[in-house]
Amino acid sequence: MSELVEVSVHDAIATVTLCNPGKMGALSVAAMQQLNAAMTEIGKRQDIHVVVLASQGKVFSAGHDLSEVRGADETQQRQIFETCTELMLTLQRIAQPVIAKVHGLATAAGCQLVATCDLAVASQSARFATPGVRIGLFCSTPMVALSRAVPQKVAMRMLLTGDPITADEAAAAGLVSDVVPDDELDEAVSTLATRVAHASAATVSLGKRAFYDQLNLPVAEAYEKMSEVMTRNAVMPDAQEGIGAFLEKRDPVWQHHDQ
Amino acid sequence: MSELVEVSVHDAIATVTLCNPGKMGALSVAAMQQLNAAMTEIGKRQDIHVVVLASQGKVFSAGHDLSEVRGADETQQRQIFETCTELMLTLQRIAQPVIAKVHGLATAAGCQLVATCDLAVASQSARFATPGVRIGLFCSTPMVALSRAVPQKVAMRMLLTGDPITADEAAAAGLVSDVVPDDELDEAVSTLATRVAHASAATVSLGKRAFYDQLNLPVAEAYEKMSEVMTRNAVMPDAQEGIGAFLEKRDPVWQHHDQ
Amino acid sequence: MSELVEVSVHDAIATVTLCNPGKMGALSVAAMQQLNAAMTEIGKRQDIHVVVLASQGKVFSAGHDLSEVRGADETQQRQIFETCTELMLTLQRIAQPVIAKVHGLATAAGCQLVATCDLAVASQSARFATPGVRIGLFCSTPMVALSRAVPQKVAMRMLLTGDPITADEAAAAGLVSDVVPDDELDEAVSTLATRVAHASAATVSLGKRAFYDQLNLPVAEAYEKMSEVMTRNAVMPDAQEGIGAFLEKRDPVWQHHDQ
Repeated sequence: MSELVEVSVHDAIATVTLCNPGKMGALSVAAMQQLNAAMTEIGKRQDIHVVVLASQGKVFSAGHDLSEVRGADETQQRQIFETCTELMLTLQRIAQPVIAKVHGLATAAGCQLVATCDLAVASQSARFATPGVRIGLFCSTPMVALSRAVPQKVAMRMLLTGDPITADEAAAAGLVSDVVPDDELDEAVSTLATRVAHASAATVSLGKRAFYDQLNLPVAEAYEKMSEVMTRNAVMPDAQEGIGAFLEKRDPVWQHHDQ
Repeated sequence: MSELVEVSVHDAIATVTLCNPGKMGALSVAAMQQLNAAMTEIGKRQDIHVVVLASQGKVFSAGHDLSEVRGADETQQRQIFETCTELMLTLQRIAQPVIAKVHGLATAAGCQLVATCDLAVASQSARFATPGVRIGLFCSTPMVALSRAVPQKVAMRMLLTGDPITADEAAAAGLVSDVVPDDELDEAVSTLATRVAHASAATVSLGKRAFYDQLNLPVAEAYEKMSEVMTRNAVMPDAQEGIGAFLEKRDPVWQHHDQ
Repeated sequence: MSELVEVSVHDAIATVTLCNPGKMGALSVAAMQQLNAAMTEIGKRQDIHVVVLASQGKVFSAGHDLSEVRGADETQQRQIFETCTELMLTLQRIAQPVIAKVHGLATAAGCQLVATCDLAVASQSARFATPGVRIGLFCSTPMVALSRAVPQKVAMRMLLTGDPITADEAAAAGLVSDVVPDDELDEAVSTLATRVAHASAATVSLGKRAFYDQLNLPVAEAYEKMSEVMTRNAVMPDAQEGIGAFLEKRDPVWQHHDQ
């Protein structure tokens, strides 16, 4: 792992940190490739149960590195946005839930990262925006994630004005799952990550995959698929152990991660 | 109707009550089959205009009967989840709107019931959760209804942590349509049911069906279908009576239910 | 333009005003045709960057003209609802964002107009309802826009009861993008319209079209399309100018509207 992304792993929790503070957490092509490589690698590791995506410096991420977008030809532009798309799809495709830990600003592709993560905890003072329209570059790829996370009119207002929303507004709209006082962000994310990490990893990864598999299907079709997922889940050792533990009022002991 | 489900009908309002208080409103296979049979039967009756789904005892429903899931083989598990799915699809397919009357707890498939009903009134102290992840059995079928009722990150937080949300949080997220003080739940549900029951039953059943018919279609296709629904609705006797009554500032008199 | 719709244009902002105050802003066939014609015409004009949709009189719009629906045969009814659908599709298809400026009441097809506009600013005292069910004519076409703007249970409660919601409730549910004190409505809409109008028109129109193009697609497919939209946007003169201006900390100068 090179300098733009750091990965640390403790107690089944991986923390992936974007280290580009001098550029406001810019998602340069190199940074996106390193994030994508780190996430892909984590996706293969059964000892990691949950991922925290954080950022160094004063802000979470101000989005793409505009010095790369400036003057680039169509082929180079395409590489930027395809690399970005690949990163976003990876975040939802890997087995582990990804929690965005958001402070300061999350704008443009930085806001898209938040919208894309499975969960997002924001500090009270964090702000969110898709301001591309102000510089002639509409946030069309951030919009894919944003418009699936919040109501249409909230997305449209952010996209058409570029105006930021507060952490509380983001929570009310569904863009983040939790808001906490700034000085409790570390602890809140750690508590949430630990809680998810203590569940059966086999169950959590099956559930995350199932969530996105069923989201866009017609209801009857979604039920047909999920009914089958539940059936297979219910006969898994961890489910039988968990149900037994619950009925016997004891703590469950999960299998190792090779089910 | 056997002991797990009671049906009473007054003034065009059917109240279907889950009578499994000793098991926290557990949705055993028998209970789900009886609920499904009761709802299917009601769906054929033109003298019933609206359905209230309630539950006896301290909680609304804690979901599946785990003693049935424990030790069951794949065939038995499949029967549990297919029976559950059938019940959920029936609730949305019958002609009459179904109002969940929720007190205490609605968890797992109990929360799914709430998410599936057309309307839901919750008492202030009610709590909602999809805690399957805690026992190794991810709430994949409840997720189908939940993820269509609330924003993605709210659903994900409930599914990945299993933590309960309050009635007010449920209302803010769209999981329930109303929250009332605990001691006003009976009256609030009765008032709402009466209001829906006094509308033209032909119109209400046409509208409910249309709602789900158009929900997943592309906008232009949805409009094509709904434009035709409106056209046929507008020439129905009840619509012409209702419009006439409105323009003449008098109460409408609906036709009997054989239009 | 005849008497039911007035269009004025100042500083790249078109204001389209429904002038049917004696009929509570009724959307008669003539009014809808005139609105549609006005919007279609605006859609072709590159000197207009944003549209405000307002209404004269005490209310925004009470929906269809019921005196036209009364006694009409199926062919006439079909004309009413197809004309309505055409108007709604036009609002989302034209290049410029449309801002609903809502005061008083927005009911039935009037509420649908609000749900359909890209943005909506409501005065604090405004109310929103889909009361067709009360007169035997379920709001099935308004439902298409409503159920895509707000959570399912909010839509269902409005549709099945006909009860109005307040401006604050509408904002919380996503039906409007902003609520302001009644005496600040003019200024708030003007400020918002000006802000959108000052952005690059080429970028805004590309973004609006892209929004609806991607909304119903599976995520991976949406990204594939939007990645291409971003690529083409990024090499446009306005984007390169905007990025340059941002990096050089100066105001951008947009091209004329013939890119």
